[in-house]
Amino acid sequence: MSPIVNGRVLFSEIPSYFPVPGKTVTYDASQEVDLDMVDLDGGILIKTLYLSIDPYMRVRMRDPEIKSYLPAFEVGECLTGLGIGKVIRSENPKFEVGDYVYGLMVQDGPGLIVIDNRYKLPLSAYLSVLGMPGEYIIPKLGGFQLTNTSGQTAYTAWKEYSYAKKGETVFVSTGGGPVGSLVIQLAKRQGLKVIGSAGSEEKVQFMQKIGADVCFNYKTTCTRDVLLKEGGIDMWVLLSKFRPVLRTKAVMAHRYWDNVGGETLNNALEAAKFRGRVIECGMITGYNEGYNTLISSALHGSLGLTSLILEQNLDQIIVKSLTVHGFVILHFEGKYDEEFYRVMTPLVASGEIRYREEITVGLDKVGDVILAVQKGENKAKAIIQVAND
Amino acid sequence: MSPIVNGRVLFSEIPSYFPVPGKTVTYDASQEVDLDMVDLDGGILIKTLYLSIDPYMRVRMRDPEIKSYLPAFEVGECLTGLGIGKVIRSENPKFEVGDYVYGLMVQDGPGLIVIDNRYKLPLSAYLSVLGMPGEYIIPKLGGFQLTNTSGQTAYTAWKEYSYAKKGETVFVSTGGGPVGSLVIQLAKRQGLKVIGSAGSEEKVQFMQKIGADVCFNYKTTCTRDVLLKEGGIDMWVLLSKFRPVLRTKAVMAHRYWDNVGGETLNNALEAAKFRGRVIECGMITGYNEGYNTLISSALHGSLGLTSLILEQNLDQIIVKSLTVHGFVILHFEGKYDEEFYRVMTPLVASGEIRYREEITVGLDKVGDVILAVQKGENKAKAIIQVAND
Repeated sequence: MSPIVNGRVLFSEIPSYFPVPGKTVTYDASQEVDLDMVDLDGGILIKTLYLSIDPYMRVRMRDPEIKSYLPAFEVGECLTGLGIGKVIRSENPKFEVGDYVYGLMVQDGPGLIVIDNRYKLPLSAYLSVLGMPGEYIIPKLGGFQLTNTSGQTAYTAWKEYSYAKKGETVFVSTGGGPVGSLVIQLAKRQGLKVIGSAGSEEKVQFMQKIGADVCFNYKTTCTRDVLLKEGGIDMWVLLSKFRPVLRTKAVMAHRYWDNVGGETLNNALEAAKFRGRVIECGMITGYNEGYNTLISSALHGSLGLTSLILEQNLDQIIVKSLTVHGFVILHFEGKYDEEFYRVMTPLVASGEIRYREEITVGLDKVGDVILAVQKGENKAKAIIQVAND
Repeated sequence: MSPIVNGRVLFSEIPSYFPVPGKTVTYDASQEVDLDMVDLDGGILIKTLYLSIDPYMRVRMRDPEIKSYLPAFEVGECLTGLGIGKVIRSENPKFEVGDYVYGLMVQDGPGLIVIDNRYKLPLSAYLSVLGMPGEYIIPKLGGFQLTNTSGQTAYTAWKEYSYAKKGETVFVSTGGGPVGSLVIQLAKRQGLKVIGSAGSEEKVQFMQKIGADVCFNYKTTCTRDVLLKEGGIDMWVLLSKFRPVLRTKAVMAHRYWDNVGGETLNNALEAAKFRGRVIECGMITGYNEGYNTLISSALHGSLGLTSLILEQNLDQIIVKSLTVHGFVILHFEGKYDEEFYRVMTPLVASGEIRYREEITVGLDKVGDVILAVQKGENKAKAIIQVAND
């Protein structure tokens, strides 16, 4: 077989602010590979099919002299990221030709696992709704585990803390996103009334499609009016994102809290019924030891954190005997892994659980998608389709 | 039998700010009663032994034109309050001479219950550590139930939300008070390590006496240092008091939040271990329909509430997967009533559970004690001993 192009995405320049496509990250088609001839040295050869584009990648695009919780990309070398590939040659008995694998793609992926796709799902689902956390995560970078856990976050939070009873009313803010949309569907399957809010008409339509009873755009409709008109809520599920970002001149990683804002908090507390529950799901893209370091630094004041000011209705937590559950998946690692895949995979396969992805075709588009994710312009989980199966 | 003095405490003048002993409230010894001759008209005659002095009483000391959640005292008439008395004559078959009764004392007490004192406790205990909430409450004023529930608050919060495991560490702030000191003792009985804080040396000594492992005065010792030195905490139990107070010129009742302050919150969140719990117990002295009206007014902005500003470490609730339970006893009314009295009464009787009261002798001291309670100068549950048994 004659050599073919072995496309790569290179980290070419450390960005000063947003990563610039074609400058920070460049697509390189100069390398070729002869699939039959390349020396495997006991390893495997993978055809990359899908790549996950995630916010944490920005943290790696920095001067390696600057310490952070993830190792820096090296200028002139390939980017790496979570992805799915197909084994096309193997000298490793753990992998067979034709296996689909999940893990850190390109150049010395330190660990890969074979996907059990008995339900014949689109492979990209394993980077989105069925993203693999816990024991399924193999890729480690300097002790850090990378994962996409919106599905497990929604499922575990719901199982652990909803105490859902048929007929109750749950309010899901950011209900159009990957965590919120799954919570909406889990709630509907248990017979709850669901009120969902989102920040665009397109997301409102998606919430309607997946079964939310009352949907509204919080930018154009008053949350308080809706919640009170609907007779109050037994539960509020919200998503808080902690995104590690690098400030231009700062040497430390900063987090910012991308939640729905103090006003929604006050509205939800006002509409809460006695003994209601609040489940606040946190999402952190890169964590474990790195996460702990980050938290530890934050606690000891070495990180300049944006502070959060809440007021007015917080006493409602007490006077209404509310319970607020903070939640990040890592503290429940493994608890629902088996159940999650056993229950959710067939539901995703049958279409009973819906999800959304934003798939962009072409490895040369990586730079554009990285920028869109950093700007928050993606409408769903961002995935690059590198090749057809 | 010749007539004896029937001492009374009169509400003589509406106070403009703090109630002034001898002016707002006066002791009157001008009435006499002939115990054998007084016409019972099918009722009972009670010798008052103990009276409970509580913060809510200030709310009743107002112009009756001003609406509030409790009826106003009438100028020139007796004060009323929760108390304990002994039946000395009865024409009502529900009461026997010699019975001890609990309820709203003096003049048409709308309901009284007979105390089952099989453990021969000091009767004042039924106004303090074994104060009666839930179905035990009879006195109603315009639909409002009055009660002293520190014991039940501590017990119910602990049973419902502590998920206590032997060997865990609990931090009890305001551990010298009636709720905190009971939590300390419940925690020790389950084999937890207890860190207690209070605002005076005297309360610190009391916490030591009842078994707290680490005690400190938060005014002279850094809470953060103690909590971190002790290796962090699995649980924080705190008390938040909502006291209804009347502003001088305002026509509405205001609440203020008498908690341990934002700094302690931040320290406790910093020291919290992953999946730790916070139990925030609210105490409200007069409630039910009145309470709901108060809350409802607050929600709709008709009350000028002091707002609470919290910052900095609130995101720890999420990143550490903490759970915060707000709690007021009324939402759990009756759930632990039977268990509470069955379990706690013998423990109080045997001295295994300790408690404190500040008993002042003499009905003529009511005005002074009311003022002390309004100023927060009482060191324990304030009780007036009116007479010997």
